[in-house]
Amino acid sequence: MAEIRRDLVKNNWVGIVADMALKPHEFPINKWGIETTSNNNFCPFCEGHEEFTPPEIMAIRHGDSEANASGWSIRVIPNKFSVLHLDGILEKKHNGIYSNYNGLGRQEVILETPLHGVDLHEYDKERIMMIIKVLKQRYNILSQDDRIKYIQMYKNRGIFAGASQEHSHSQVMGLPFVPQENSGLIDYYHKNGSCLLCDIIRQEKLARERLVYETEHFLLICPYASRFPYETWVIPKEHCEHFGAISEAEINELAMICKKYTCAMIDCLQNPAYNYMLNSAPINVPYIPGFHWYLEITPRLLVTAGVDIATGIYMNPVAPELSAQLFRNYMLGQD
Amino acid sequence: MAEIRRDLVKNNWVGIVADMALKPHEFPINKWGIETTSNNNFCPFCEGHEEFTPPEIMAIRHGDSEANASGWSIRVIPNKFSVLHLDGILEKKHNGIYSNYNGLGRQEVILETPLHGVDLHEYDKERIMMIIKVLKQRYNILSQDDRIKYIQMYKNRGIFAGASQEHSHSQVMGLPFVPQENSGLIDYYHKNGSCLLCDIIRQEKLARERLVYETEHFLLICPYASRFPYETWVIPKEHCEHFGAISEAEINELAMICKKYTCAMIDCLQNPAYNYMLNSAPINVPYIPGFHWYLEITPRLLVTAGVDIATGIYMNPVAPELSAQLFRNYMLGQD
Repeated sequence: MAEIRRDLVKNNWVGIVADMALKPHEFPINKWGIETTSNNNFCPFCEGHEEFTPPEIMAIRHGDSEANASGWSIRVIPNKFSVLHLDGILEKKHNGIYSNYNGLGRQEVILETPLHGVDLHEYDKERIMMIIKVLKQRYNILSQDDRIKYIQMYKNRGIFAGASQEHSHSQVMGLPFVPQENSGLIDYYHKNGSCLLCDIIRQEKLARERLVYETEHFLLICPYASRFPYETWVIPKEHCEHFGAISEAEINELAMICKKYTCAMIDCLQNPAYNYMLNSAPINVPYIPGFHWYLEITPRLLVTAGVDIATGIYMNPVAPELSAQLFRNYMLGQD
Repeated sequence: MAEIRRDLVKNNWVGIVADMALKPHEFPINKWGIETTSNNNFCPFCEGHEEFTPPEIMAIRHGDSEANASGWSIRVIPNKFSVLHLDGILEKKHNGIYSNYNGLGRQEVILETPLHGVDLHEYDKERIMMIIKVLKQRYNILSQDDRIKYIQMYKNRGIFAGASQEHSHSQVMGLPFVPQENSGLIDYYHKNGSCLLCDIIRQEKLARERLVYETEHFLLICPYASRFPYETWVIPKEHCEHFGAISEAEINELAMICKKYTCAMIDCLQNPAYNYMLNSAPINVPYIPGFHWYLEITPRLLVTAGVDIATGIYMNPVAPELSAQLFRNYMLGQD
């Protein structure tokens, strides 16, 4: 059974898998080196290998192909190695000074393509639109379960971004409480009576030095306090709390932006590992003002060091003004 | 000029190097692979290469060897690539909704050995004692500058722990404000009127399932909410806020523990990268109760994934009860 344990020192939560420990030799990183996954290894995410994953939740399929067989274009499955399960209700247990929740929640995997070795920057725009529509659908369906209080969607690409499978995929995690990582949005609203991301949009459009790209519906910026070198945020210009409310026109533009920006990252930064992280407002809780959905994208060129972990203060060797200039020049050059 | 910028969304701080950006090809990690540093590369930390580092702050030297020449056993130098400098006073600047501090602070490097390729688990106990004494001395000397409010000492070993040099070293960072990462200690004291780490010691000694090792002065545990697989804390049993107050008897025992525990980690976990992080109380600020110095050690077997970064909630695939069992059996077996 998994548990979500309270970290009293860091004032945070940790998901602990109690019954399925990875053995020392099962970690992908060891001995100063790396065992990269390779195309020769068996991949459970490839078309034709459907029997090696849990039964699909939904799929976009060709013609009259059957569920859990070949013939799919995008496939959504439960995460086989879920820490969290939508089973029962949330219960807090105490053990002396410690406390924990049961592992209530939901983890799904979106297989973005049946083809192994084809990645986001290589998809056509139609596939990216389909993926965004599937994410929207999963967001709105999971939101109907009132045990889920927050939905985090994300993509790990490459071993240095935390990916355990090479085959291109995204992930969905439904949490039984609201994580504190976006609490600055709430604090800012309380203090200023306005939305932080709306105010960031206003200031960045004037300053321009951290602006990467702009479309009718989105602004791309390298954030003022970027934790990672070349980190970039995609912010919808119209204030909107939930990703689940994304419009057709926005999906269309966001797909183009994802393609264009990922190509820029791949070309400018020598094919880096990267994360996509889709942040949205809490759900199924009393209304909390201040949220505005946004997409964080960050290449992973550095490993967090002792000082980052111990102090929580990231040291970033690349000023966001320089990152923005690099991507701005590249993306405008492609237009 | 470096800046420490306020991250309004995450409610944290980020150190930004504005004038010395790493170019894309200068990052050690790229293209899914890794360029490991090797013994063939020139190492500025080796004996005989003193002219390639900034002049030493102090050193433990043999006989009458001269400063900044060969003949040293341990050498302390300013960090050549410091983001922070002890220059002027702390100033807060505002730029619209954003704010930042100037890069006031101090970064030093402790060259633990003149020999390249010899690491902590291979030192004799006398060398480890000398290193701890040097750390204590630097802690107490830097504490005298009232612009420094917190001292973080740490060690990055291996590229997956954030090390940029292979030659074995530790680091010291003096910060101009108190990081929030240990704020749970303050909150716990306010709520309970007692020290969290003292209460953890009491509970862990009774429960025993997360206990790794015990000496007269220290307790080693895998913490209840371990963020990293096989994370271990070394906690002084007597309540003490500042590492700078460590006694001779404690130094002697801590050196033995560091040697023994690092050997266990190297043997049990196939020579992993790891971090040492020495956490202590704030300095030069009005008294804040609740702190208790402790040493965090964690092997780095996983890379933080998108969900960890986005939510702040770490997912740990190894229960600390299992980690503790592994190390406990190994360390007792060596006694």
